[in-house]
Amino acid sequence: MGLSRLPPQCHHGTTPFYTLENIAELMSLVVVGSVAYDGVETPHGKVDRMLGGAATYISLAASYFTHVKIVAVVGDDFAQQDVDLLASRDIDLSGLERVPGKTFFWAGKYTPDMNDRETLITDLNVFADFNPKLPDHYKSQPYVFLGNIQPDLQDSVRMQVNGTRLIGGDTMNLWIDITRAQLLNTIKHWDFLLINDGEARMLSGLNHLGKAAEKIMAMGPKTLIIKRGEYGAMLFHPNGYFAVPGYLLDQLYDPTGAGDCFAGGFMGYLAGEGVDPANGPIDAKLLGRAVVYGSVLGSFCCEQFGVDRFRSLTKKDIDQRFEEFRTFTAF
Amino acid sequence: MGLSRLPPQCHHGTTPFYTLENIAELMSLVVVGSVAYDGVETPHGKVDRMLGGAATYISLAASYFTHVKIVAVVGDDFAQQDVDLLASRDIDLSGLERVPGKTFFWAGKYTPDMNDRETLITDLNVFADFNPKLPDHYKSQPYVFLGNIQPDLQDSVRMQVNGTRLIGGDTMNLWIDITRAQLLNTIKHWDFLLINDGEARMLSGLNHLGKAAEKIMAMGPKTLIIKRGEYGAMLFHPNGYFAVPGYLLDQLYDPTGAGDCFAGGFMGYLAGEGVDPANGPIDAKLLGRAVVYGSVLGSFCCEQFGVDRFRSLTKKDIDQRFEEFRTFTAF
Repeated sequence: MGLSRLPPQCHHGTTPFYTLENIAELMSLVVVGSVAYDGVETPHGKVDRMLGGAATYISLAASYFTHVKIVAVVGDDFAQQDVDLLASRDIDLSGLERVPGKTFFWAGKYTPDMNDRETLITDLNVFADFNPKLPDHYKSQPYVFLGNIQPDLQDSVRMQVNGTRLIGGDTMNLWIDITRAQLLNTIKHWDFLLINDGEARMLSGLNHLGKAAEKIMAMGPKTLIIKRGEYGAMLFHPNGYFAVPGYLLDQLYDPTGAGDCFAGGFMGYLAGEGVDPANGPIDAKLLGRAVVYGSVLGSFCCEQFGVDRFRSLTKKDIDQRFEEFRTFTAF
Repeated sequence: MGLSRLPPQCHHGTTPFYTLENIAELMSLVVVGSVAYDGVETPHGKVDRMLGGAATYISLAASYFTHVKIVAVVGDDFAQQDVDLLASRDIDLSGLERVPGKTFFWAGKYTPDMNDRETLITDLNVFADFNPKLPDHYKSQPYVFLGNIQPDLQDSVRMQVNGTRLIGGDTMNLWIDITRAQLLNTIKHWDFLLINDGEARMLSGLNHLGKAAEKIMAMGPKTLIIKRGEYGAMLFHPNGYFAVPGYLLDQLYDPTGAGDCFAGGFMGYLAGEGVDPANGPIDAKLLGRAVVYGSVLGSFCCEQFGVDRFRSLTKKDIDQRFEEFRTFTAF
């Protein structure tokens, strides 16, 4: 059951055992991506500056399922209260590099129906020179999620880890457009790719999602997850597909980070379950549950501005919403 | 068990029994709407004239689940082969009025992605004076589906039937726009309304589907089904909602009639199951299965031009695809 890559063990009599700390280390998920400050305006309000960034959302969402180790860079303006929030979720911050300068800043404004947004400011700041370096104790971790950064940087992270069980990541239209060759060279090593429907069509050049998925899976990732916003998500694997409708939120306050929270919930759940593709194809229903947990985390993210929902969110809330998904999809 | 409205019965000893013919009559579904000729162009081809019309698609789809009685009008150009197709599905055509003149003709052209279409021709012809009159043996039927026609005409059909168990129907943006008062007066008597997401937003004036559903249900129909095209469908009832993603078709040839086939599959299944809201709220899972059967029929409809898929479609095909829905939504 995937124990072949266990670290040296203690023995008690003839039975090997692991301390809780060992197990947590064993199951850790390494997350790389941006940690940023965001300014966001939606029809429900406006916040000039708050914690954001893909790696932040992914890590917070995944932290409900597994132990997370973050790799990112921030400036010397990064606030202690934001460190504290991440630390409160037991996220390992030894890979959060702090350098002189300002933290990446992004600002955007959503359309009235919140299906689209306009970017107002992108100040890369210290993120412009981000060169992810993994602390030694990150390098033997079995789970790696490569958040949406330049594909060569994603690849440099992948090459720093050894014996990964499951590696996957995200990308965006910008990289598909301007760094296509690098992107293809990067994702060919991944177990899964997680993008939205527009990106899937752009990457494959095909409009039909099933045919797009087939073409993308031939590029390397044997599993493709396609996020469809309010319409839910699909997962394609060599033996079929899974689809789940979107959750009907009472109130959508701020969609920022929802896709990243989906990624965190998806990958965090798989890591927490200790899946190991080396033992054969991952069970289709388990992949389905990962997509539903992704959807659950994405839905919670939208209920408050920025990362605010994570200040009160509990595992019990998550499990209750998971059961709600069962109820409203059962027939 | 809804048997209170059974017709006079034969008795064998002390146990009442019904012949198959009695049961079929009892469970009949009356469908009113257009029977037409269509000209359709999609990226996959062009057909100048073929059988179409909402009542045609609804009746064909429903005929796999229950006995259907059609109410419509055609001109003297209506071809015997088209009569034969409907009759081959055991659809009662005694309410298909034939008058001098031409059958309703509609022509349209789809956009390359088939998410939209342009209407090229609308010749109402004999349909302009359609005044639905139900044959006597239609008037005591328990199930009625009012296809998309002028709301006052829908209401005149409703008033011709007595003791209906379940009555529902469809409408469109045109009637919401130009005959809103009549529409509201009509749907207040319905058990369910079946529309698409754009129409739900237009009718309610609300963007949020859940809030739109709440407002529409307050207009009368206790159940609201919202079709979302390739994204599937939702059903709202007083105690919650159900959602199913869309089926991933290998090839979408012609979406014409898909929404009507959804309606036929949905209503046909409920009629075939003999549901009777007089006995209490309809089981939520049964409503869910009706939505899935609707989705199944809608998906088959798109696989060939016009009604062509119904020339070969079997109940076994339908049940297999229903099981496919179970497989790709299970987690």
